[in-house]
Order: sequence, then structure tokens, then C-alpha cells
Amino acid sequence: MAVDMAEGVTVTRADVERAAERIGGHARRTPVLEAEPGVLFKLEFLQHAGSFKARGAFNRVLAAREAGEAPAGGVIAASGGNHGLAVAHVARSLGVRAEIFVPEVTGEVKVAGLRALGAEVTQTGAVYSDAYAASRARAALTGALEVHAYDHPDVVAGQGTVGAELLEQAGGVDTILVAVGGGGLIAGVTAAVADKAAVVAVEPERIPTLERALAAGRPVDVEVGGVAADALGATRVGGLAFELVRRAGVGSLLVTDDAIVAARAELWRAHRIAVEPAGAAAYAALLSGVYRPRPGERVAVVLCGANTDPATLA
Amino acid sequence: MAVDMAEGVTVTRADVERAAERIGGHARRTPVLEAEPGVLFKLEFLQHAGSFKARGAFNRVLAAREAGEAPAGGVIAASGGNHGLAVAHVARSLGVRAEIFVPEVTGEVKVAGLRALGAEVTQTGAVYSDAYAASRARAALTGALEVHAYDHPDVVAGQGTVGAELLEQAGGVDTILVAVGGGGLIAGVTAAVADKAAVVAVEPERIPTLERALAAGRPVDVEVGGVAADALGATRVGGLAFELVRRAGVGSLLVTDDAIVAARAELWRAHRIAVEPAGAAAYAALLSGVYRPRPGERVAVVLCGANTDPATLA
Repeated sequence: MAVDMAEGVTVTRADVERAAERIGGHARRTPVLEAEPGVLFKLEFLQHAGSFKARGAFNRVLAAREAGEAPAGGVIAASGGNHGLAVAHVARSLGVRAEIFVPEVTGEVKVAGLRALGAEVTQTGAVYSDAYAASRARAALTGALEVHAYDHPDVVAGQGTVGAELLEQAGGVDTILVAVGGGGLIAGVTAAVADKAAVVAVEPERIPTLERALAAGRPVDVEVGGVAADALGATRVGGLAFELVRRAGVGSLLVTDDAIVAARAELWRAHRIAVEPAGAAAYAALLSGVYRPRPGERVAVVLCGANTDPATLA
Repeated sequence: MAVDMAEGVTVTRADVERAAERIGGHARRTPVLEAEPGVLFKLEFLQHAGSFKARGAFNRVLAAREAGEAPAGGVIAASGGNHGLAVAHVARSLGVRAEIFVPEVTGEVKVAGLRALGAEVTQTGAVYSDAYAASRARAALTGALEVHAYDHPDVVAGQGTVGAELLEQAGGVDTILVAVGGGGLIAGVTAAVADKAAVVAVEPERIPTLERALAAGRPVDVEVGGVAADALGATRVGGLAFELVRRAGVGSLLVTDDAIVAARAELWRAHRIAVEPAGAAAYAALLSGVYRPRPGERVAVVLCGANTDPATLA
């Protein structure tokens, strides 16, 4: 699956509803704060393992169990970041083994964090794609269930529960701002809300995976850099996400690194919310004026992750 | 009012309901997170100015306006901490002057924070009680509206909206754990929930204002120290709070500084919630086992403040 997604595979609102039933009682229902009149924050950084990623990982593993694909070799993923932490949490919570592959560049703090969640960590290869290739080879050997970071329908449907929940909680919302890396979250949210709200993608200008893909008519590689690269640093948007958001007419807005840093500082100053740069990217579009709501428009901002060193907020 | 509270003055559920109407649209409605099955967090640190104190200050000033006591000289308060920040925020938000008196020991960061909110800051006296006395003398001169940090019925009724909101949001809760300093919050919550939930006071063992008062049958001075002293460091519980909680049969549990530090660390580790020590004190009772819920009991913990240096969480 994952990288060689079959033509025509997609995710529907019904898939998201099934995911919500499946992961209820496993993932947290994260609350919504009306930060100021008409501006809602979905506090998804309060999710298990500090980001929305636990939703997709729970749905992937639970759906496989339902389908009788008992993961004898446990679960396996490549990521030293939010996805790895989420898969490790999900595995521990469901009582299965987790193997996480990370590249050599991954810092000791992150490796220790994964081990603290009970995961077996293999550090191999110079960059993420090497670790990913190694994880695939290992999975072929052990039969472990691969949990892709974004480009799998069960992962996308799980992330979509963020959007479904938000609509239930918000009592009417016109627009949802969502940060994009590999595109799993925006794909899921787009599927979940259908025509009930507009979805707007926000990307760091130094990682414009979706913008470039929309311009090219297909996912293309981009250079990755800047303050949010540790969490939004996919080199290209997933094929599943690309098709979903293109068909829905979702547009992409770019924000500067300075705007992300300012939004993160403002979330702490004015709201006592501590998030990572990627978690502040969607808010940066609103705060910097790159996204300007109409009078009376109700805008929801997904604050999607907080796996950060709080000392960097001071 | 304040220190020389008239005999028989109290706060009722109706007072809290009026406060909720009055401050709606001014104070934030803070969300509730079901952190684990049966354990709810009231995320009150997301309130304006970083603590619940804005509720009481809004209610005090707005109630005075309703009563025709237009504060010609603006508002005045003594506090270099959460209460001072809240009064400064409320004054700016309502377009009135704020004078805040702080003792000489108050650090430059807090003074700068108050000034950033537009307050005039007067630094005078060695300790809080000196600054408080100076604020009272100044108020007598200028006619400014005094906003006491806890021992005033409008302040208590405003803080009580935390409890009323929680009952609306939680869909049934058996017990509410509340940290105590001067007692404004627990008094308000006690009045708000009446017999709909049990209220339990949690105090740092190094500042047992309520426990000593309950033992003595009246508010008495205690020594103040420990990690939460900057926010829970009243030398005695307010008379209004004492009467309210005594009549309601609210008991006090003591937690160690170590338990508070551990609870604060766990809130960050497992929930990505960054609070100050006082904001973690109530959770410390649950996490350390000082408070043990019955099987099936639903416990809400008020996380009441986050005016802290996030670097101390790392």
C-alpha cells in the first residue's frame, strides 16, 4: 500500500465515521476553545503522544485487526518525530510490539522518547527515506503491519476524525485552517467535512509540497527546510491526499518562518498554549493576515502538535 | 469591603448565575478535556491573563458599573501575580485605568508584564501587605474601585463561574478538586455547585491556610513557602471563603512540594499542558494518591493558572 497506492483509492465521510467509532475510547476527544469571537482553536496537541498522529495510527491498527490481519510481528513505522511517537503509543496501548526506524540524524532525545514508550528503535541510513526503505524490508521479513505516516486510507480516515469532531463541537464553522506536511491531516479533514465547511491548507513557504503539486498537477519533490521541517518536512505530498484535496478545490496558502515563530509566541503569550512550530503554522496564516476572514466568518484553526522543548518558548 | 467583610455576607448559586451572565462575552469559556476515563481537566489556565482571576475581576468591575459606582479613578489592586495581571487585563478590556501596587520584591519581569497590559505600576513596601495597605490609602484618595484578590462577594461569584461552567460541560461530575490560596476560587465553586458535586480543597503543605483555619474555627495566619507560594501564598484564607466552605463541609487535603512538581511535569509529559506549580496543585492530590476516587467516580480537576516560565518545564 502506502507508496504504491492503487488507482482510485480514496477516503469518504463514511470512512471517517467508521474511524471515529473504531478509535473512540482510544484516541482523546480534544476540546475546542473559542479564543476570540469567531476564532476557534481545535486543541489537538492535547492528543495522546502530543499530536493528531495517534488518531490515524489507532485507526490503521484497529482496522487491520477487524480485517483479521493480526499483526504477528507487531507494527512497524519509519519516523523519529510525531508519527513515530504516535505509533509507539498506539502499540503500547493495544499491547503489540512496535519497531520504529529512524535515520542516523535523529537526536538522542527523540530516540529516548520512543524507547520510553516501549518501542524497539533501529537507527539506520542517512535520511528519512533510507530509514523508510529499511522499515519496508524489515516488514517484508517479519510480517509486521506497516503504519505509513500519511499515505494510507485508514491513516487518512483516522486523521479525518479531527474534522468530524470539530464540526460536532463548534456549532457551525465556515472555514478550517490546517497545516500540511505529507497531507494526511488535510486529506482526512477534507473528506470529513465535505461541503459543510471550507478547508484551507497552510504550508511553510520553505516546504510547499501541496502548492507545488497543485501547480504541477501531481505530487512532486520539494526542498525541505525551515523551522517546521521536523514535523512538516515530507519531501512530497501523499498521492491520496493530493487527489482528495485537488478534487475538493482546497487551496494552499504559504506562510513565512517568521510568521510561524510569531504565531507560536503569540499562542503562548495570549493563550498559554505551548505548541511546536508546525502546530502554530495554521494560526500563522490568520495572525499574519495571509488568510483574511470575511466579517462574521467563523474560522477554526487546528493546533496539531506540541512535541517541542518548552524552553524555546521563553 | 474586602478585609472588613460585613457579618453574614455570602455568595449563592444565584449570585454565580448573575456573574455568568455579566461576564459572558468578556471572560473566556474554557474547555474541558477528558484526560482519561473519569478524569476531567478544566483548562482554566487558558483564561485571559493566564488564570481564573480574570473572571472575578470582570465581575467585580461590571457589577460596580451596574450599581452606578462608575470608577472615576479607574480600578486599583495589590498583587504582582495572577490577580494583578487579571485586573490589568480587565481594565484595558473595559477601557478604564488600572493602578497595580506591588511590593519591592516583585521581579522586573512581572512589573514589565503589568505595564505591557497598560497598568500603572507602583512598587512600594517590603512585602505584599505593605503594598496592599498603600493601595488602600491610594484608593481612598482617588476613589478608584478596589478589586480585592479574593475576599469580596463579587470576586467570589465571578470565580464561581468556573464551577457552573464545568457542571454544564462535564455531563455529570462527582467531585471537583480545587487548589486553595486566599480561597476565592474554592468559595465560588462551592457556591456554584451546591449539592450537585463534592468539592475538595487541595493545599500545598507549606501554605495550609484553609486546613489551619478549619482546625482553629476561624482564619489564622500561616507561614508561607514552597514552590506554589507565588500564586497560593496568601497568609490566611479569606473570611468569606472560610464561612462558605466550612458551612458546606469542604475538607482540605495537603500535598507536598514534590507532589506538585511531579504533577506539573506529568501534565507536560502526558498532556502537553504547561501550567505553573499552583495550577498543578489540585492534580497533585490525584496523581500522588492523596485523593483516591471510588471505582466509577468522575473527578474534575481545575487547572487554574499558567503564568510560568516554560523553560522550567524542560
